Amino acid sequence: MTTPESQVAPPDRNRLAVHTMTTKPLSLAKAAEAYSRRGIPGISVWVEALEGMTTASAKQIVDDAGLKVPALVRGGFFCASDSLERGKRIEHNRQLIQTAADLDAEMLVLVVGAEPGVPLDQQRGWVRDGIESILPEAEAANVKLAIEPLHPMYAADKSCINRIAEARVICDQLDHCLVGIAVDVYHVWWAPDLSREIKLLGEAGRLFGFHICDWRVPTRDLLTDRGLMGDGCIDIRGIRTEVEAAGFDGWIEVEIFSEEHWAADQGDYLDKIIQRYDTHS
Amino acid sequence: MTTPESQVAPPDRNRLAVHTMTTKPLSLAKAAEAYSRRGIPGISVWVEALEGMTTASAKQIVDDAGLKVPALVRGGFFCASDSLERGKRIEHNRQLIQTAADLDAEMLVLVVGAEPGVPLDQQRGWVRDGIESILPEAEAANVKLAIEPLHPMYAADKSCINRIAEARVICDQLDHCLVGIAVDVYHVWWAPDLSREIKLLGEAGRLFGFHICDWRVPTRDLLTDRGLMGDGCIDIRGIRTEVEAAGFDGWIEVEIFSEEHWAADQGDYLDKIIQRYDTHS
Repeated sequence: MTTPESQVAPPDRNRLAVHTMTTKPLSLAKAAEAYSRRGIPGISVWVEALEGMTTASAKQIVDDAGLKVPALVRGGFFCASDSLERGKRIEHNRQLIQTAADLDAEMLVLVVGAEPGVPLDQQRGWVRDGIESILPEAEAANVKLAIEPLHPMYAADKSCINRIAEARVICDQLDHCLVGIAVDVYHVWWAPDLSREIKLLGEAGRLFGFHICDWRVPTRDLLTDRGLMGDGCIDIRGIRTEVEAAGFDGWIEVEIFSEEHWAADQGDYLDKIIQRYDTHS
Repeated sequence: MTTPESQVAPPDRNRLAVHTMTTKPLSLAKAAEAYSRRGIPGISVWVEALEGMTTASAKQIVDDAGLKVPALVRGGFFCASDSLERGKRIEHNRQLIQTAADLDAEMLVLVVGAEPGVPLDQQRGWVRDGIESILPEAEAANVKLAIEPLHPMYAADKSCINRIAEARVICDQLDHCLVGIAVDVYHVWWAPDLSREIKLLGEAGRLFGFHICDWRVPTRDLLTDRGLMGDGCIDIRGIRTEVEAAGFDGWIEVEIFSEEHWAADQGDYLDKIIQRYDTHS
């Protein structure tokens, strides 16, 4: 998997996108302005960044800044023991698809959810059914649905899909051109079958998104201690090379949750992100 | 995987063992006395519990309490970029095998280690070579070597083996009756291939150890927030049923690292452990 960094060119700057959650302290307007000023062309919008504004205003902000929106983040959370609750969540995903369409986002990222104590394979059935239920809206809006496998440390309460393989099974079952996978290096870097799975995704045309950050050593918190590219142990460039060899030429999205970085000056932080995108991605 | 708890009998009390690290505040002497008084027949001894005493004294303590020693915990840590350092660690494992033999421990548990930034498959080669190097000593002492796959959240710096499958590959490569696997529910409960892997281990006669605890929701710390059986989301009884169906009838070892429980009265805690062993294991 390792590729000597010197032999691989940095990724194109025109493929760089940043998730609004990466610069959580900034409002959508401030984030859009800051990204745009630095020549970052893409902004993946978290639902949290839309709070207190209409989608039309958000779209205006993004357009005024000249940014594209790879993804609305995040829908999903299909897992609940109560079927009425599952129905509510499916309905919420339908709304999110509309929001994604209104923002001209390419895809809605699905973090599929988990219900503690319920067998994970049973929960994956709920996920499959949930995605199937929202396919008509995805088709009508032409919005891709990207299942994001989360690291196994989130299997209890955030995602019953913890490897690319299980996400791929659901893609195969639904067999729809709008259902694919977002690969985040943070969640999958450790997986012994990573190279094989990336290849399979590429062949099937199901590699929709590619998210980057790094795994700090040690990691001090399960949720909010992700590292800036180059500050951890992930061979990001190696994985990017594999993803591109599999045919992926889409956005490279920087998604970092970090109390440490959120506490810093967000402009300086964005400058560092761009630098590390060039040198370590 | 789920088995209605009511349909499965509690495990035999004579298979219960507790790891000294579970009751970290107690010295080996105090732990042995406390376990023995409660009718806990097994004590898995951590290397840390031996500090400041001879192995002979430790053996005397364990014998006086009438306890058996399923495992010495833990050797391994074979991964280092520097080959001299790897050699030192192999030598240390040779000493640990002797310590295990002196304690009449059935096995030495191997946490295989990890070197941040080195491809994990390369590291697994070091592990294979390391175990191969210590096989003569294991044979001479008749001590089993149990590879313990650790949860993927430890892939960066603690273990390059994060699924049973990769541990099994090394067992197959070495193909030696003294090389097998310790399955800890904390590390593997989430794995979609768990049932299959347990079955394969059973068929190959490589299921050496079975460790239990629970996965707290939420988990507040990556290292020291394991749950008491029944306080988390793991279907421990279901996994035990599978392990036994695969032919395992050895010790059921309670291994819990928990700041919360270490802060409690260790006698009360041991009483709870026994109760939860009966009701949730």
